[in-house]
Amino acid sequence: MATAGKVIKCKAAVAWEAGKPLSIEEVEVAPPQAMEVRVKILYTALCHTDVYFWEAKGQTPVFPRILGHEAGGIVESVGEGVTELAPGDHVLPVFTGECKECDHCKSEESNMCDLLRINVDRGVMIGDGKSRFTIKGKPIFHFVGTSTFSEYTVIHVGCLAKINPEAPLDKVCILSCGFSTGFGATVNVAKPKKGQTVAIFGLGAVGLAAMEGARLSGASRIIGVDLNPAKFEQAKKFGCTDFVNPKDHSKPVHEVLIEMTNGGLGRAVECTGNINAMISCFECVHDGWGVAVLVGVPTKDDVFKTHPMNFLNEKTLKGTFFGNYKPRTDLPNVVELYMKKELELEKFITHSVPFSEINTAFDLMLKGESLRCVMRMDE
Amino acid sequence: MATAGKVIKCKAAVAWEAGKPLSIEEVEVAPPQAMEVRVKILYTALCHTDVYFWEAKGQTPVFPRILGHEAGGIVESVGEGVTELAPGDHVLPVFTGECKECDHCKSEESNMCDLLRINVDRGVMIGDGKSRFTIKGKPIFHFVGTSTFSEYTVIHVGCLAKINPEAPLDKVCILSCGFSTGFGATVNVAKPKKGQTVAIFGLGAVGLAAMEGARLSGASRIIGVDLNPAKFEQAKKFGCTDFVNPKDHSKPVHEVLIEMTNGGLGRAVECTGNINAMISCFECVHDGWGVAVLVGVPTKDDVFKTHPMNFLNEKTLKGTFFGNYKPRTDLPNVVELYMKKELELEKFITHSVPFSEINTAFDLMLKGESLRCVMRMDE
Repeated sequence: MATAGKVIKCKAAVAWEAGKPLSIEEVEVAPPQAMEVRVKILYTALCHTDVYFWEAKGQTPVFPRILGHEAGGIVESVGEGVTELAPGDHVLPVFTGECKECDHCKSEESNMCDLLRINVDRGVMIGDGKSRFTIKGKPIFHFVGTSTFSEYTVIHVGCLAKINPEAPLDKVCILSCGFSTGFGATVNVAKPKKGQTVAIFGLGAVGLAAMEGARLSGASRIIGVDLNPAKFEQAKKFGCTDFVNPKDHSKPVHEVLIEMTNGGLGRAVECTGNINAMISCFECVHDGWGVAVLVGVPTKDDVFKTHPMNFLNEKTLKGTFFGNYKPRTDLPNVVELYMKKELELEKFITHSVPFSEINTAFDLMLKGESLRCVMRMDE
Repeated sequence: MATAGKVIKCKAAVAWEAGKPLSIEEVEVAPPQAMEVRVKILYTALCHTDVYFWEAKGQTPVFPRILGHEAGGIVESVGEGVTELAPGDHVLPVFTGECKECDHCKSEESNMCDLLRINVDRGVMIGDGKSRFTIKGKPIFHFVGTSTFSEYTVIHVGCLAKINPEAPLDKVCILSCGFSTGFGATVNVAKPKKGQTVAIFGLGAVGLAAMEGARLSGASRIIGVDLNPAKFEQAKKFGCTDFVNPKDHSKPVHEVLIEMTNGGLGRAVECTGNINAMISCFECVHDGWGVAVLVGVPTKDDVFKTHPMNFLNEKTLKGTFFGNYKPRTDLPNVVELYMKKELELEKFITHSVPFSEINTAFDLMLKGESLRCVMRMDE
């Protein structure tokens, strides 16, 4: 590659400060160092987590920063020691990694890599503690090791899944984060048996991906729970058979769900991050076989409370991080599910805009109008 | 059988009132009604649950009552509709049942039979709401459907596991309750991987059975947690490699355990019923792959509290009832494990007394001197 080893100048959307519209700037992208890969991003989607760290409410502000973590791209060049990827490979960047050497990576039960686990406060590469992005020589911070709101970005090899080059990157880019988190929560963690009832709390993109998992698992009944009644129409496309709005009931929503299902749900997946929803998600599952899975991220002062007899009555409580997928090992297989037409990713991509209109994508998400807005980097 | 269809007069240990020594009496045992079986008990063991309901502190007192639920016996006669058992069959009575027809029995994930689930307040048969025991015509109450402190007892067919007639009843009688509860908690629910670390909270008979499960699963390290330091010596025979007494530390015991194990246990099983032990049992397991299993019965006002991030960090919290064994389907297989010399039941049977000395068995348990005391009914 003519660009290998050289600084690349390209466009990136820079968040200069919390909550202010992103600004498309020319940035310099340094060559990848040891165990790093420089990737040309072709498509990137906006996830709620980008918005969350852009708003930076109650967090350590890390600015100026290049956000973005759901994307698909092609390897431009690789740094020293990278043997698994080569220029031209198609990849999905992932906000959490898989070093393949730590206890977590070696365990078949965990995907929480010690080396490359998500770190939202770190704005630099782990190799040398520096940024690969500069504007006129001044560093711009990275975001969760991916920073995909840039035509080129530098990513640790452990945070890149090499995928089937025939997979359309404008579709499978959404497997980078939200879809896999929700879908994996159901198929890898809740694991509904065919014919079981499933409740999904929160009908955003992650919740609907969890619902897609319930549909593919052959759930007999899928109950969506959301405070916004407008969500039901959209959710029907994802297999939602019943809808419950907690606001419509004076009793706790888990009591409503237990009555609707003759004793409780077979499985329930919580995708809101609200502590009361988490508690209801667990309370609503059936004794003997019920499994509740927490996906939504709580606040630091939240306390989960329940009577311990619920556990002795054989209810199980789990949570998940990135749908329990190991990024490098498992994500290529999720791409194959799409290639086999088992996954209907198109339903999630409600909008698409040129990269230059990235602030429109933010507006759509803030208004709750989009599930996923994919940005085309070449426009 | 000469006795079939007739009332049998025999000896039983009657608890006339809470906390008072049992009295060996001559009782009349009525013939089994529909779906019932009359069993000649050969050996019965004392379990802490018998003592708990004999003390009847804070419970509905149900007296006079014939306690006892860990036992082995032989079918004397069967009532109408009983096709799976015949006189002469060797059986283990179980305090919870398996009707084979309800949603729980039909589910491969549950053993919490709707019809025959444990009921500690009911002192009568479910068929007609009456007792089969009388003394001079006055009814004596049953206990958890088993009442094995009697030479003959009447039990619902769904609460009897038919076992290999070659199995020694003086040993396998302890599989009726405590052993299976603890052992199943580990092998059926916690399911340690070979080489994982396991912590067991509470080193009574149930905890040591859980430890036996960890040993058979190939745990690399088994940490026993108990307030009584004397328990360590005994626990070593069950595979215990390390011992922690929470009283020896100023910090919470889960912090001690996390430090001892470089980040947390692979599996932890709680067998005390103490809410703080339950919470520590969950806190001490490793993120990514840790599984905590609650076995001990909490009080009704207990609240389990934790930060929900523990679940998102992929710790799993479960509980179990009777080790997740379906009594009729699974218990015969546990007996076979003993027949194949995989289980070392002899370690649990620390004492044996004639049935006439049943109050000695109570004394031994109250003093904490026995794990299991087996009573010989023919003496």
